[in-house]
Amino acid sequence: MKLQLNDTITALATPHGSGAIAVIRLSGKKSFEVVEKIFFDKELKSKKISSQKGYTVHFGVIAEAGIVIDEVLVTIFKNPHSYTGEDSIEISCHGSTYIQQQILQLLLKYGARMANAGEFTLRAFLNGKFDLSQAEAVADLIASNSGLSHQVAMQQMRGGFSSKIKVLRDHLVSFASLIELELDFSEEDVEFANRTDLKNLVQSIIGIIEKLVHSFEVGNVIKNGIPVAIVGKPNAGKSTLLNVLLDDDRAIVSEIPGTTRDTIEDEIVIDGVLFRFIDTAGIRTTTDIVEQIGVNKAFEVIKKSAIVIYLFDAHELSAGDLTLEIELIRRHIGTSQLVVVANKIDVENVDDLHKEFSEFQPVYISAKENKNIDVLKDKLVGLFDARTVNTTDTIITNARHSDSLKRANQALMKVAKGLDENIAGDLLALEIRYALDELGSITGEVTNDDLLDSIFTKFCIGK
Amino acid sequence: MKLQLNDTITALATPHGSGAIAVIRLSGKKSFEVVEKIFFDKELKSKKISSQKGYTVHFGVIAEAGIVIDEVLVTIFKNPHSYTGEDSIEISCHGSTYIQQQILQLLLKYGARMANAGEFTLRAFLNGKFDLSQAEAVADLIASNSGLSHQVAMQQMRGGFSSKIKVLRDHLVSFASLIELELDFSEEDVEFANRTDLKNLVQSIIGIIEKLVHSFEVGNVIKNGIPVAIVGKPNAGKSTLLNVLLDDDRAIVSEIPGTTRDTIEDEIVIDGVLFRFIDTAGIRTTTDIVEQIGVNKAFEVIKKSAIVIYLFDAHELSAGDLTLEIELIRRHIGTSQLVVVANKIDVENVDDLHKEFSEFQPVYISAKENKNIDVLKDKLVGLFDARTVNTTDTIITNARHSDSLKRANQALMKVAKGLDENIAGDLLALEIRYALDELGSITGEVTNDDLLDSIFTKFCIGK
Repeated sequence: MKLQLNDTITALATPHGSGAIAVIRLSGKKSFEVVEKIFFDKELKSKKISSQKGYTVHFGVIAEAGIVIDEVLVTIFKNPHSYTGEDSIEISCHGSTYIQQQILQLLLKYGARMANAGEFTLRAFLNGKFDLSQAEAVADLIASNSGLSHQVAMQQMRGGFSSKIKVLRDHLVSFASLIELELDFSEEDVEFANRTDLKNLVQSIIGIIEKLVHSFEVGNVIKNGIPVAIVGKPNAGKSTLLNVLLDDDRAIVSEIPGTTRDTIEDEIVIDGVLFRFIDTAGIRTTTDIVEQIGVNKAFEVIKKSAIVIYLFDAHELSAGDLTLEIELIRRHIGTSQLVVVANKIDVENVDDLHKEFSEFQPVYISAKENKNIDVLKDKLVGLFDARTVNTTDTIITNARHSDSLKRANQALMKVAKGLDENIAGDLLALEIRYALDELGSITGEVTNDDLLDSIFTKFCIGK
Repeated sequence: MKLQLNDTITALATPHGSGAIAVIRLSGKKSFEVVEKIFFDKELKSKKISSQKGYTVHFGVIAEAGIVIDEVLVTIFKNPHSYTGEDSIEISCHGSTYIQQQILQLLLKYGARMANAGEFTLRAFLNGKFDLSQAEAVADLIASNSGLSHQVAMQQMRGGFSSKIKVLRDHLVSFASLIELELDFSEEDVEFANRTDLKNLVQSIIGIIEKLVHSFEVGNVIKNGIPVAIVGKPNAGKSTLLNVLLDDDRAIVSEIPGTTRDTIEDEIVIDGVLFRFIDTAGIRTTTDIVEQIGVNKAFEVIKKSAIVIYLFDAHELSAGDLTLEIELIRRHIGTSQLVVVANKIDVENVDDLHKEFSEFQPVYISAKENKNIDVLKDKLVGLFDARTVNTTDTIITNARHSDSLKRANQALMKVAKGLDENIAGDLLALEIRYALDELGSITGEVTNDDLLDSIFTKFCIGK
């Protein structure tokens, strides 16, 4: 990506397709000039945009060669008080695809060019409106589809994470200056920096970074959903359960009028937490090779899941069967949490079942009759809460940030070790510099074109 | 539909789904009050909206219980200077479905209600911002997908058609007043209105209305596309031709960056004109009953089409065969126009073909090799031009308007006849009143809830 800040970019900012209105955005030095070529009052007289105040809206028509394309509202933003920090315009037009195309073509004709993916936000970053991790949070914010992922992205966009990184960098910089001071006077064999203090400082920084790296485990789950495997014998009712959970979620969403959820198959939001359900082939010990492959796959899914729901037909299994089954699951489960669920309960048998299976403390449900599904949901959300999510803590949701933090920490560990082994200050300084660069790359204080490219091409066009 | 103008309505105004930004609209007396409950500055301090000027934009956050939902731009429109004529607000937020839902829910919580389909435009009509035919044009404008349909809808929205109707009504009103004057003095047997002048006036009005009614033929075609049947023997290359035409159109559309066309199968825009292509089963004389049904269907399609393309394989048919074929078509074609197209031409044979088929003046193409498709397109557009579309003329595109005009004209014909037969003035006055009501129902001067209901429920929500 060539960083061209001199030209004026434009794009459709609202979703594709027809709607009541659509918004076309421009940003760059020539924004006002370009729009003035096609924006007129109702009598097709020119309207001067550049002389208007920022944050004002103007009604008029977009026209070319005397033919009116649309009646529009034009909003003016003046450098530096805009999203990008540049002169910017938003044209709010009628939401017909045809009109959107016509207006965009006119803007191109008069000197704008189509924006690349994420280019508005890239400019905001380059003009110092955002740091890099905040810019990345904009994309996360738009993609967020649960309360938790939204909250974490919002906190990051508003600079929560950035300020944390800044504190770390400040600590490291003062640490580095102590080391470097020592370096300057090294021939005099004076120790300006107390080595014990230095060790404590670097250890505390390592501790903070470790906590952040660790938070990525939770952050990743918040952003991408908690993987939940539903396993059990064939006919235990796995698909029915999955459908009941999905339908419920869809019903809740459709109660919010005027909106539709971009439903992704098998993703469910419960109490603001995104769960990603994975149905599996039935699990059983088998000698059939083909069947064994299916079962092995199920075990693989189990390994990758954070939560495993073991579902069984309460009429089919005895407590003894269940013991064997659960033992089999436990052998593959790793660190995931197990939820045992008894399906196909009905009023008559519920007391007997409670006795039979009491040692396993299952959740008793009837997927078919939509009974106690809420209890199961509470249990799932409870398990997640138990993993101690505190949204006021800073949570990493971005693999790039996690990787940078890990590399910074590796460097700092070398520093810590070096201090123990009384290694020369200039070697320590090198590692500290490296750690600083890694932290700086998170917020974009240290950056390069390739990095920016890989970040912003993941954005949608118009953002 | 109960017309409730006292409450405050809200809806998503941009298309569903994720995008860079989304716009949520409010209109009604409490718009400012509702938004003030959830709109704050960056430090979460209240922002007074009602004291701000109209047509200004304000940056801030939407928050509830101290939790920030989004950073947004709020645009203020003050009664009567808004689309609806009421106090209105547009909230421009990040385009995540989750955020859209959260903000809408908060607006509902604090006293807005979800808008019905078309309710913003309905309010604009009820508040005198639009007449009814202009309001209807808003929906047409959003749905328009070709240059012509867009232009006609725009002209109608901007009041071109309304002013024409107004002139007609003014004529009729003065006509009616003459008749009624005569009525008042009827016992004195005085004729205030010169009957010959009256006859001329009513005839001229009938003439204008007839022209408008007639324009619906063209208008309907502009709005819904020109139906074109492609007929010919099996293997003449009908599907190949259709695909070449469609691919060409899609390629043109996809050249416009950042936009996608909502492609409807078999609809093509050529030079701003929408053509709706209908592929048919092959046509041939047959004794097979099942096949005959297919052939009969083809003849039905031909009857409904404005243009019939007869496609033949230039290597298969002789001039003699072609004569028979075309005779068969002509028997079913009615008033549609016939375009004869010779397919599968190549460089070697083109001169011979020209000789063989000269009397039919076919368009020579090769669908497979995409040869001369432009020539065929020019021919199609030319045929439509030949039907004398003049977009500066007023063109009716709405069946409701056409029906009202027809009924108005029927009444006026009775008046004309009555004048001939010296029928009493009070009977004439009755018919004139009826014609006036019909014209008034077009612009909404005469209206009722059912009519409004049937018009606005066809709108999208948010408009």
